[in-house]
Amino acid sequence: MTRPRLRDLGIEIGTLPPGPLNAITDVPGVWVGHTTVVRDEPRVVRTGVTMIVPRENRVWEDYCFAGWFRFNGNGELTGLPWLEESGMLGSPVAITNTNQVGLVRDAMERFAAEHSVRNGFWLPVVGETWDGWLSDINSFPLTEDDALAALAAAGPGPVVEGNVGGGTGMICHDFKGGIGTASRFCQAGGGAWTVGALVQANYGDRADLRLDGVPLGRLIGCDRVPGAYHEEGSPGGSIIVVIATDAPLIPTQCNRLARRATVGLARAGGVGHDGSGDLFLAFATGNHLPGGQTRRRLEMLDHGEMDPLFTATAEAVEEAILNALCAAETMTGFRGHTAHALPLDAVAEAWAARPW
Amino acid sequence: MTRPRLRDLGIEIGTLPPGPLNAITDVPGVWVGHTTVVRDEPRVVRTGVTMIVPRENRVWEDYCFAGWFRFNGNGELTGLPWLEESGMLGSPVAITNTNQVGLVRDAMERFAAEHSVRNGFWLPVVGETWDGWLSDINSFPLTEDDALAALAAAGPGPVVEGNVGGGTGMICHDFKGGIGTASRFCQAGGGAWTVGALVQANYGDRADLRLDGVPLGRLIGCDRVPGAYHEEGSPGGSIIVVIATDAPLIPTQCNRLARRATVGLARAGGVGHDGSGDLFLAFATGNHLPGGQTRRRLEMLDHGEMDPLFTATAEAVEEAILNALCAAETMTGFRGHTAHALPLDAVAEAWAARPW
Amino acid sequence: MTRPRLRDLGIEIGTLPPGPLNAITDVPGVWVGHTTVVRDEPRVVRTGVTMIVPRENRVWEDYCFAGWFRFNGNGELTGLPWLEESGMLGSPVAITNTNQVGLVRDAMERFAAEHSVRNGFWLPVVGETWDGWLSDINSFPLTEDDALAALAAAGPGPVVEGNVGGGTGMICHDFKGGIGTASRFCQAGGGAWTVGALVQANYGDRADLRLDGVPLGRLIGCDRVPGAYHEEGSPGGSIIVVIATDAPLIPTQCNRLARRATVGLARAGGVGHDGSGDLFLAFATGNHLPGGQTRRRLEMLDHGEMDPLFTATAEAVEEAILNALCAAETMTGFRGHTAHALPLDAVAEAWAARPW
Amino acid sequence: MTRPRLRDLGIEIGTLPPGPLNAITDVPGVWVGHTTVVRDEPRVVRTGVTMIVPRENRVWEDYCFAGWFRFNGNGELTGLPWLEESGMLGSPVAITNTNQVGLVRDAMERFAAEHSVRNGFWLPVVGETWDGWLSDINSFPLTEDDALAALAAAGPGPVVEGNVGGGTGMICHDFKGGIGTASRFCQAGGGAWTVGALVQANYGDRADLRLDGVPLGRLIGCDRVPGAYHEEGSPGGSIIVVIATDAPLIPTQCNRLARRATVGLARAGGVGHDGSGDLFLAFATGNHLPGGQTRRRLEMLDHGEMDPLFTATAEAVEEAILNALCAAETMTGFRGHTAHALPLDAVAEAWAARPW
Repeated sequence: MTRPRLRDLGIEIGTLPPGPLNAITDVPGVWVGHTTVVRDEPRVVRTGVTMIVPRENRVWEDYCFAGWFRFNGNGELTGLPWLEESGMLGSPVAITNTNQVGLVRDAMERFAAEHSVRNGFWLPVVGETWDGWLSDINSFPLTEDDALAALAAAGPGPVVEGNVGGGTGMICHDFKGGIGTASRFCQAGGGAWTVGALVQANYGDRADLRLDGVPLGRLIGCDRVPGAYHEEGSPGGSIIVVIATDAPLIPTQCNRLARRATVGLARAGGVGHDGSGDLFLAFATGNHLPGGQTRRRLEMLDHGEMDPLFTATAEAVEEAILNALCAAETMTGFRGHTAHALPLDAVAEAWAARPW
Repeated sequence: MTRPRLRDLGIEIGTLPPGPLNAITDVPGVWVGHTTVVRDEPRVVRTGVTMIVPRENRVWEDYCFAGWFRFNGNGELTGLPWLEESGMLGSPVAITNTNQVGLVRDAMERFAAEHSVRNGFWLPVVGETWDGWLSDINSFPLTEDDALAALAAAGPGPVVEGNVGGGTGMICHDFKGGIGTASRFCQAGGGAWTVGALVQANYGDRADLRLDGVPLGRLIGCDRVPGAYHEEGSPGGSIIVVIATDAPLIPTQCNRLARRATVGLARAGGVGHDGSGDLFLAFATGNHLPGGQTRRRLEMLDHGEMDPLFTATAEAVEEAILNALCAAETMTGFRGHTAHALPLDAVAEAWAARPW
Repeated sequence: MTRPRLRDLGIEIGTLPPGPLNAITDVPGVWVGHTTVVRDEPRVVRTGVTMIVPRENRVWEDYCFAGWFRFNGNGELTGLPWLEESGMLGSPVAITNTNQVGLVRDAMERFAAEHSVRNGFWLPVVGETWDGWLSDINSFPLTEDDALAALAAAGPGPVVEGNVGGGTGMICHDFKGGIGTASRFCQAGGGAWTVGALVQANYGDRADLRLDGVPLGRLIGCDRVPGAYHEEGSPGGSIIVVIATDAPLIPTQCNRLARRATVGLARAGGVGHDGSGDLFLAFATGNHLPGGQTRRRLEMLDHGEMDPLFTATAEAVEEAILNALCAAETMTGFRGHTAHALPLDAVAEAWAARPW
Repeated sequence: MTRPRLRDLGIEIGTLPPGPLNAITDVPGVWVGHTTVVRDEPRVVRTGVTMIVPRENRVWEDYCFAGWFRFNGNGELTGLPWLEESGMLGSPVAITNTNQVGLVRDAMERFAAEHSVRNGFWLPVVGETWDGWLSDINSFPLTEDDALAALAAAGPGPVVEGNVGGGTGMICHDFKGGIGTASRFCQAGGGAWTVGALVQANYGDRADLRLDGVPLGRLIGCDRVPGAYHEEGSPGGSIIVVIATDAPLIPTQCNRLARRATVGLARAGGVGHDGSGDLFLAFATGNHLPGGQTRRRLEMLDHGEMDPLFTATAEAVEEAILNALCAAETMTGFRGHTAHALPLDAVAEAWAARPW
C-alpha cells in the first residue's frame, strides 16, 4: 500500500552510494519521530510535528556543532541567535506548521525543564512550513502533548515519508509534498562518513520540477494531473532542510554544509521564491560537547577534504525532496482542496525516455 | 511612591535633548503595553509581557523597515529569517520570559488570524530574558490571554518602567532590573527626528556598572547593597533592546542603528557575557509599506546624515538602562531570593562628587 | 572565426526572453571593457582585466544600490565592508587574476583621485579567479595601465566572451572557460525590467556539467576531449558573477538577487567546491544616488514582485556560464598546459538527443 | 624623548594585568614590524605600513583560526571571503593608507609566491585608514619594497607606537593618533592566556574621548589644544583593531572576540561614525593548522569560559587606543595641516582630579 521510494522505481541519482536506510537515520544516533494529526471534525486538520533527534535524544546534555543557511527567509526557525553565536545545537530540531512553532518550542522547554540535568537554559530549534491550504491552520490544532509525542516516538530505523508529521499537509511543486529523506556515504580525510538529509517540502512551481535534469514537471504538466494552486491568494511555500553527519566538523564547516543544500534544491527545481522560507540547518555529531568540560578535545576534518561531503549533501537533499514527492499520497482537506500525488507511472516513463 | 527617573535626580547624560516623554513612545505612533504577573500561590511568579507596538497597532497591515544586531546570542528573538530577508517588521515586538517565547509568539499569530486583513502569513517577533532566579519559570505561568492583554493595553504616553511587563523579574548589574526607556531628538538631512529605546535589562556584573563614566557599581559595591547573584548556577543575563525612529531609513540603515545600541550598552557597563542574549532590534516608521502596492515610493536619509541618529541611539540606550535601574524596586521572589534596588542616594552622591 | 553562442546553436534554455544583446549590456548604461594580455616572452602570460561599468562610468558620482553573496569564499572581492554597510556600489566592478587584485584596485583609486568630483574616498570592488595553470601568474604580468585600459575600453553593445579580459586564462568544468554573459527580460510590479549577468567562469568538474539538465559533461567525458586538470596540485577554481538590473531595488533586494546566482550555477553543474571562490555581486540602477543629497527619493519594487527577477537571474547566470564555454577556444599556455574548448558538435548532438 | 605610555603616567585602567610588554607581542610568536615614510619632497608624505605577524612569520604554512567584525564598514579589509568561509588566517595582517591597500596586498602575494612551500594560493589580509589630511595620499607614495620591509622588520619585543608604520599620518579624537597596543593576562578553563590588541587609530570627535570614564576630550576642549578637523570636507576616520590570543579558540569564538573590541572602542569614546571603517580582526594561535593534515586534532576553550577573554579584549583595545594617543607626537604635514598631540599634563591632571 505504501508508495515506492525513488530507488524502488529503479531511479538512482547522483554518484555516491546511499546508506543502508537511505535516510537521515543512517547517521548513527540520529532518530526521527512524527506526530500526525488528521481529522475532519470539528475543524479540518492535516498537520503534525516531526522531530529530528541527534544522539539518541542525549543532545540536551551533549551538544552538536551546527550551522545554518537562509536561502530565502520567508519562514521561521527559532533558536538562531545561539546557534550562530555558539555554533552549537542543544535540542532536537522540530518542524511543524507555521502558526504553532511557538507551542512546539515551549513544549521542548518543558521537556528540558523536566528531564535534563545540564543547566536551566535552552533555546530550542523549531522550523515550520505553511499548511493552510489543506489544513485549517487558524484552528491551532496541535497541543503540547502532540509535540512531545513526536519526541517520544522518535527512534532509529526507517523513516516514514510523505503525508506524515510536520509534512502532513504540505504541497511541493504543485503535487502533494511532505517529509522526505535520503543519505549518502562518502570517504574523506581517511575516514568514511554518512551525510543524511530530511526535508519538509512545501515549495515550488509545477513547471520547475526536475528529476536528475529531466524536466518532469513540464512533462507531466497540469492537464494530466491538476496542480494544487490554481486559486488566488496562496502565500507560497517553503522548505525546511535538516542535514546530519557523523563527520568531525566544526561550526564553520556546518555552515558550509548547510549552504550546499541549495544545490540539491536547485537541481530539484527550487528557485527560492519570495514567499518561501527556505531554511537549512546542518549538524555534525563527530565531536562530543558534554557539559562540565572547560576545555574540549576536538577533531576537525580539513577544509580541503570537504568536497565529498558537499557532493553528498547536494545529492541527499535532491533525493530527499524526490522521496517526499514519491511517498506523498493524494490528499483532500480544508475547504475541499485536493493536492494530487506525483504520478509515479509518469515518473518511470520520463526516466525511461532519457537517452543517457 | 514611584521612584524617580534618572533625570528626576538631576542627572543628564549625553548631548542630545530627550523627547517630551523621554520614552520610546515619543516616536509618533509607537505604543507600549505591559502585562505583569506577580503572585506567590500556587507557584511564585514574577514575570510578564511587554509589547512595543509600531503604528498604533496597524503594523500588521503597514509594515516598518527594520534591522537587528546580535551582540551576543545567548537568547531568543523569533522572526529573524524574514526580518533579515525582507528588512521588514510586520508585527509588534514582544518581550517576555525565556520559557514562554513560543506562547507569546503563537498568541500573536492568533491575533493576526483574527484581526488582520492583509494575508494569512505572519512571522511575529518575540524576545526574552531569563527571570528564573526571582520567578518559578518552569511553572510556565503565562497564558495566551496574558500576551494579548499586553497588546490590548498598549497605548501612547508615558511608559511604566522597572518591575513591569517582561521586565518584572529581571536583574541588572546585580541590582533589580527590568524595563527602561528613553529618547533623543536630533536634526539630520534637513529634518528633525526622534530616536527612542526600550530595554528589558537583565545583564551584567555589579562592578562594571557606569553612570556617564562614573564607576557607580564599584562605588556602591556589594557590601553596601547585597548583590543578587552570590549563589552558584546562575545562567547569566541578557538584554533586549528595541529602538524606534520616525526617520526615513531603509533596512540597511536600521541594521546600522541596531548595532549602535552596543555603544550605549558598553557605556553602561555591558561587555556581552557568554551567558547573555544581547539582541537589538531597530525599526523606522518614516516609510509606509502597506499591502497591495507593487511599487513603493520611499524616502531615505543619506548615510552621510546618520551620525546624529547614531549618537541618539547610543544615548537613548544608555539612559534607558539607567532608567530601568532607577525605576525597579527591591523584589523578593522564588526561593526567597531578593534582588535589591539601585540605591538612589548613592547615585546622587556619586554624581555630585564628580569634578567635571 | 568566432565560435557561436549557445543560442546560435539553436539552444534556448529557460522561460524568459533575453534582451537584444543577450548580455549584461542590455541593462541601460551598463558597459563592459576588457584588457587581454597574451604573450609567450619573456614569461608565458594568459591573463587580463574585465570591467563592468554601471551608469556609463558615472557610478563614481551616482552610486548604485548593490548586494553580494558568498556561496563559497575561497576567493577575493575587495570593497565588501562598505558594500555591506551601505548597500552601495561606488565604482565599476573589475575582475582579474588572483595575484593582481591589489594592482587593479589601486589603479581604480588612482582613476578616482584624478577624475572624480565627489569626495576623496573610494573603496573599489575587484574580484579574481586563479589562472596559474595557463598563465605564469607569479610573474605579476599586469600593469596599472592594463587595468585603466579596460576601463577606457568599456562601452555599450555586444560583449566579447571566452578567452578575453579577466577570463583569458580560465578553465571551467575542465574545458576552456572565461568570460560569458546573458540577459533576461521580465515583467514585475507593472514595469518591464532587464536582468543581465556576466561571469568569469573558472570552476567545476567535467562530470558535473549540465546543459538544461542534460549531463553534457558525462556525455562528452574525458576520453573524447582531454580534461585540463589531470595533474596534481590544482588549487581549484572559482566563479565571479556580476548581476545588473535596471529594476528599482533597495540593497536588501540586491542581496536576494545575488543569492539566486546559486541556482544558475547549480543548474550548470556547480557545487561550490572547497577551493572555489564563488562570489556573486548584484547591483541595481533603478534608483539614482548622486552626491550632495541629504534625503533621497527612492522607488522600490515590492518584495512580492521579485519572483520574475529571481527566475531571470537564475536563467541569465546559467546561460552566461554556457556562453563562456561556447565562446572559449582551446588554449595552450604556461608549461605547455592545454585547456580544450567545449566541443560544440557534441553539444548539438546531446541537445538533439533529448526526448523533450 | 619618547613620550610615556599610559601606565608610565601612573594610569591603570581595567581589572586584568597586562603582559610584560603590555603589547600584542606578549602573545607568543606574534611579531610586529613597521615601515614609516615621512618626507616633504617631492610630495608631502606621512604614511607607512604596519605588519602584525603571527607564528614568527610561519603563518603562511601554519594557519591560525580567525574571525572578524564590522562595527562600521566605511573601510577596507581584504581577504574577508576566505576568512569568513574557513575561519582561518593564512597571512600576516597588514595595515596601511587607504589608497595603497592593493599594493600591500599584492606585495604579500609576491612574498608568498617566493617564500612559501604550501600551495600557490593566498588571500592576504590588508586593512587601511585614511591619512590624506596629513599626507598627500594621492601621490601613492608607498612601494612594494616598503610593504616587504615592514614584514622583514617584524619581530618580537616592544612595539613602537604613535606616528609609525600605517599609523604615521593618523588622527584620533582630533588629536594626533596612530599605532597603539596593549595586552591583558587572564585565567580561563584551567589555563592562563594572553590577549593582545594593536590599533591603527584614526577616528572620533574630540568631545567624545574618555579616559576610564573621565570625559577627557571635553575637559581639554579645542581651545586649549586646537582640533585637527576644523575645516570642511574631512571624510571621517576609521580604526582597525587586530586582536591576538594564544587561547585555543575555534573560528566561531574568534568572531566573538572581535565583536568585543566594540566595548573597548565605546569606552574610549567611539560611536562608529558613518565615515568610519571600524573593522576588527581576531586570531588565535592556540591551535596549529599546518598544511598536509587531512584530519586535525584541536583544542577548544568552552564557550562558558570565555568571559575573561571578553574582558581582556575590551580592556586591551581601550588601552591600545589611549596608548596610541599618548605616543603620537604633534605632526605637521600636507598643506601645512597640523595635528596636535594629546597634552599629557592635561591627562595627568584629569586623572588626579577624579574622586574614586
